[in-house]
Amino acid sequence: MIVVLKPNTTPEVISEISAHIESLGFKAHVIVGTERTVIAAAGDERKKQLEQVESFEAVEKVLPILAAYKIASKETKAEPTVVKVLDLVIGGGNVGVIAGPCSVESEEQIVETARAVKAAGAKGLRGGAFKPRTSPYAFQGMKEEGLKLLATARQETGLAVVTEVMTPHHVEMVARYADVLQIGARNMQNYHLLQAVGEVDKPVLLKRGPSASMEEFLLAAEYVLDQGNKNVILCERGIRTFETHTRFTLPLASVPYLHEKTHLPVIIDPSHGTGKASLVPPMCLASIAAGADGIIVEVHPDPANAASDAAQTINPKVFADTLEKCRVIANALNLKMN
Amino acid sequence: MIVVLKPNTTPEVISEISAHIESLGFKAHVIVGTERTVIAAAGDERKKQLEQVESFEAVEKVLPILAAYKIASKETKAEPTVVKVLDLVIGGGNVGVIAGPCSVESEEQIVETARAVKAAGAKGLRGGAFKPRTSPYAFQGMKEEGLKLLATARQETGLAVVTEVMTPHHVEMVARYADVLQIGARNMQNYHLLQAVGEVDKPVLLKRGPSASMEEFLLAAEYVLDQGNKNVILCERGIRTFETHTRFTLPLASVPYLHEKTHLPVIIDPSHGTGKASLVPPMCLASIAAGADGIIVEVHPDPANAASDAAQTINPKVFADTLEKCRVIANALNLKMN
Amino acid sequence: MIVVLKPNTTPEVISEISAHIESLGFKAHVIVGTERTVIAAAGDERKKQLEQVESFEAVEKVLPILAAYKIASKETKAEPTVVKVLDLVIGGGNVGVIAGPCSVESEEQIVETARAVKAAGAKGLRGGAFKPRTSPYAFQGMKEEGLKLLATARQETGLAVVTEVMTPHHVEMVARYADVLQIGARNMQNYHLLQAVGEVDKPVLLKRGPSASMEEFLLAAEYVLDQGNKNVILCERGIRTFETHTRFTLPLASVPYLHEKTHLPVIIDPSHGTGKASLVPPMCLASIAAGADGIIVEVHPDPANAASDAAQTINPKVFADTLEKCRVIANALNLKMN
Amino acid sequence: MIVVLKPNTTPEVISEISAHIESLGFKAHVIVGTERTVIAAAGDERKKQLEQVESFEAVEKVLPILAAYKIASKETKAEPTVVKVLDLVIGGGNVGVIAGPCSVESEEQIVETARAVKAAGAKGLRGGAFKPRTSPYAFQGMKEEGLKLLATARQETGLAVVTEVMTPHHVEMVARYADVLQIGARNMQNYHLLQAVGEVDKPVLLKRGPSASMEEFLLAAEYVLDQGNKNVILCERGIRTFETHTRFTLPLASVPYLHEKTHLPVIIDPSHGTGKASLVPPMCLASIAAGADGIIVEVHPDPANAASDAAQTINPKVFADTLEKCRVIANALNLKMN
Repeated sequence: MIVVLKPNTTPEVISEISAHIESLGFKAHVIVGTERTVIAAAGDERKKQLEQVESFEAVEKVLPILAAYKIASKETKAEPTVVKVLDLVIGGGNVGVIAGPCSVESEEQIVETARAVKAAGAKGLRGGAFKPRTSPYAFQGMKEEGLKLLATARQETGLAVVTEVMTPHHVEMVARYADVLQIGARNMQNYHLLQAVGEVDKPVLLKRGPSASMEEFLLAAEYVLDQGNKNVILCERGIRTFETHTRFTLPLASVPYLHEKTHLPVIIDPSHGTGKASLVPPMCLASIAAGADGIIVEVHPDPANAASDAAQTINPKVFADTLEKCRVIANALNLKMN
Repeated sequence: MIVVLKPNTTPEVISEISAHIESLGFKAHVIVGTERTVIAAAGDERKKQLEQVESFEAVEKVLPILAAYKIASKETKAEPTVVKVLDLVIGGGNVGVIAGPCSVESEEQIVETARAVKAAGAKGLRGGAFKPRTSPYAFQGMKEEGLKLLATARQETGLAVVTEVMTPHHVEMVARYADVLQIGARNMQNYHLLQAVGEVDKPVLLKRGPSASMEEFLLAAEYVLDQGNKNVILCERGIRTFETHTRFTLPLASVPYLHEKTHLPVIIDPSHGTGKASLVPPMCLASIAAGADGIIVEVHPDPANAASDAAQTINPKVFADTLEKCRVIANALNLKMN
Repeated sequence: MIVVLKPNTTPEVISEISAHIESLGFKAHVIVGTERTVIAAAGDERKKQLEQVESFEAVEKVLPILAAYKIASKETKAEPTVVKVLDLVIGGGNVGVIAGPCSVESEEQIVETARAVKAAGAKGLRGGAFKPRTSPYAFQGMKEEGLKLLATARQETGLAVVTEVMTPHHVEMVARYADVLQIGARNMQNYHLLQAVGEVDKPVLLKRGPSASMEEFLLAAEYVLDQGNKNVILCERGIRTFETHTRFTLPLASVPYLHEKTHLPVIIDPSHGTGKASLVPPMCLASIAAGADGIIVEVHPDPANAASDAAQTINPKVFADTLEKCRVIANALNLKMN
Repeated sequence: MIVVLKPNTTPEVISEISAHIESLGFKAHVIVGTERTVIAAAGDERKKQLEQVESFEAVEKVLPILAAYKIASKETKAEPTVVKVLDLVIGGGNVGVIAGPCSVESEEQIVETARAVKAAGAKGLRGGAFKPRTSPYAFQGMKEEGLKLLATARQETGLAVVTEVMTPHHVEMVARYADVLQIGARNMQNYHLLQAVGEVDKPVLLKRGPSASMEEFLLAAEYVLDQGNKNVILCERGIRTFETHTRFTLPLASVPYLHEKTHLPVIIDPSHGTGKASLVPPMCLASIAAGADGIIVEVHPDPANAASDAAQTINPKVFADTLEKCRVIANALNLKMN
């Protein structure tokens, strides 16, 4: 950490702050510059109370040097993590496709959708059984009944089931039916939930919170990894900005940025990322071109009658056309995509 | 809801969409304008799938007319909700002050702080026992031991204890010790948690999520209210914007805006809202001047040694000076503040 | 426009507001709903003072129906605008590539770069002669001398010169040397400048302001179009959000969204959009995959010694490799890219 | 500046980067930490190309130490700048009030408003003659005719005239009529305009751009100061965020933050900052409580018929009531407000 002092800080105060820094376990180097004195504090910053140093009157600012995450860091593990479950392979040059309805609505709906997305090339089936909804009056999902239907759809198609778990005491139940446990954007910093899925032996698909920084996102993953579960898939699903013509703003630069920082695979959710069906296909293509390890897409046989997220859902025909173009791009970039 | 159609939509398609709208329980009025046809759909929008309408090819956009919250709305209940617990009174012209450390660290620390903030005029004591921390490596709180120390501090001072609960299965335990249950900003859309505190007979202090719209904030309150708990205090604690000189951006216009929309009381957290101790006192004054029903402030006897949030914590002396000025402003505006 | 009234608005007030709306030239339709009365006002909203209606006490909100831009709208002109200058062709299925240094620094630098980017496939040469810099102490460009060097580079290579004009009284001078006049992001709402370039017979490359909405962006284009200059290229270069790991957040969904709304071509600037050289190549690929009509990229023979924007500038080798992959993607999508 | 190197950077590369840093005029100190090596570069950062250093492959990030502005800094001049013109006094404990319509519409309108706001206690009269409007189809102001009417209103009331100048070649004309030259938010980074008003002997009211950081805001002021004009008033008028219930988000913490960094006075524009008339009065009070050196408020005798900004304009009666409360708060804080 670098501690920048205010101008005219006296030698006594510099000593006092240096002593406090050393008491925290750092080695302090004082560097006197032309307009500012800075203290470079060497040591592991991750488990320290850097904020304490900021509370000294004479401290102008504290600049951290190290990222706060460790297990998620590429410095800890250079080779990419590849998550495999059934035929779904994500990471390390493998592009995995997950698709399905926002919500599970009926056996017919979920099995029909599963067949359609499988035919188009998807290897994972998404579908919400427990639905976090902004309004308490909106459809909240079929709950365990929905999980059972997802399991049926897997049996029929062989697709890996990806579904959301919303609260720690459901983890065991959801894990009984699902192949991949999804943590939704609203729960990215629900730490008890992160720890609970960290204790389970199923891959976790962690969505970025709409106002989470990259460091916060990776620290959320760190909560899961720290419990022993090493199969975390990061999912960029758009952030909240001043833009209103899309539901969220989808920053695809997250993909190469995260690939520089972490070994974990990174997928994109263009459905939530745009909120508008017509924008989903071009954003699928752009995701693959940006180097994403996969995409997760909302597909419904009849979007106009979907129980949730109708406006951002595409139909199986559009989905199949889109995947075909994705494959050409993946090939061009030497990525493996079925 | 108003459904705006694309130009040149045929009468057949207009009929089809109108029929779908009526099938959802609305009454559809078609209005042919110079450049657009719109369908005004009258009816209660709150429990409907408006998104389905948006998925029609010919629909350009859907404009909702009604806010989605109902119990929280001033239209449902015009007179302001006043939350009273021990000597803490918030709402309806009463300005309540809650203060204390970020985290409970020891009996001495919490009792000493409680005495100091009480002497300055606070009626509520804040202090975290369960701490949601961005990093898994940061201090996570004293847990139940911390709750016991808060209860001790209450016994010594009579202050109402305000403390955070992070997960549904802790609600009962936290409610045993606390007077007000705090839902942190990260958990504003943790719906299982909202429902759990909605079933308890203790007031809830609900913090706005850093990227929550006003409607989302009020719908989160609605989750609590809908379970029967009518004592919800809304807390603006800053939003995430492009600004980096403060930890968050604190939008005080939330206060008069919320007062126009809801009967629930609104308080401000200038500590998280700015993240910088020197900015806390002026933001306390501005909060009162903006009409806030209270403030919640991080105060620690020795900020430089606080276990968390040191940079944004003020000491008891600064706090007392600030409250004195707040009182003058409250008087000028005919607000009651002890 | 739809005017939503507050509950319990009296018939007298409804009449008064309707009369005001009709006095503005609209036809007012009153629709009485279950919880709200709305007035649908039919007519051309673009030249009216809608805000006046909002100032009535009884008005809850005013919802506009029509976009405020007209000449830029696809409804006015369905076929895509294709901008052609020398060998640079942008729009209507043609992907144009513009590249070059942030600033013109010397004849050697600009000619060498021009040759390199031409060899890689660029048809336009970018390079700043007048540089808008955040700090008054930063290098402000070579001014007219820089324009002359750009003209020299064009003579040597045949590339079309794209360069920024910062103030109305420079328009004539810059237009004497340049093939395309660039309006920088900071000047997107410098209306006198927009009008000045609107009077000139050279294409205009208009960059989106970092906090401009899509409507504001298209209205800025409308200022140019309204003066008679129909050759406007829209350029998405990133928006300001809470993200700090990139210089700006680059929302590629702008491309398909704008293609739905306007006939003007849309290009991407991944250099400013990310601010980080390593992220530029994947964002070039993603831009093409998203359907962009072109890219504009900062390339310098020796980024470490560039006079400005060094951190986001790539070298000619990386640029050539990137364009090669872009071409494969363009082919896959049936776009024409040399 | 602090240069953080990637792990495992070789001594050769460290030497090469150090040499480059020294060639830029800095003194380089290499500090080897447990996980990272950093180079602390002492020297004046303001006129250097720090970005060049960032372009080295082995550089992870560059952290600046010094703010880039200098003349605006409190370190350069500790005592507050007080701007006085006619009876308007802003800064150094003096709270100045500027009020008036968005646009000048007629002699009657501007003189009547001037009298009303003067009676309420304003010392400055605002009113746009040149209006930057988002749409080319909106009312663009009365231009020079409007300036003349402002001068008439000054003659009638003695109020100081504050009005916007939009482009460099109007500066001389506007300065002939106005007492304070306003630079609008859209032009905060119109550097030719900033330089032009920097050469004039009239105070400048500089509005913050809606996505400008504090450093960018102060650097814009620096452009004016650097030309010799020392009378710059900073005006916070709200930033663009994800919030839509207000037109902009008004961050009042800007006031105490700027007071820590600069000697320039800081005023608030609650009209643009909220965009909603009912929110203006509480935000006026909060501004004074936050320590603002003044406010600038849109007031019109008949908001429903205002030619622009009707929705955020208050009438003279509301304005007078608001100022009365502001005065009580100012007194409580020992600020001078007439």
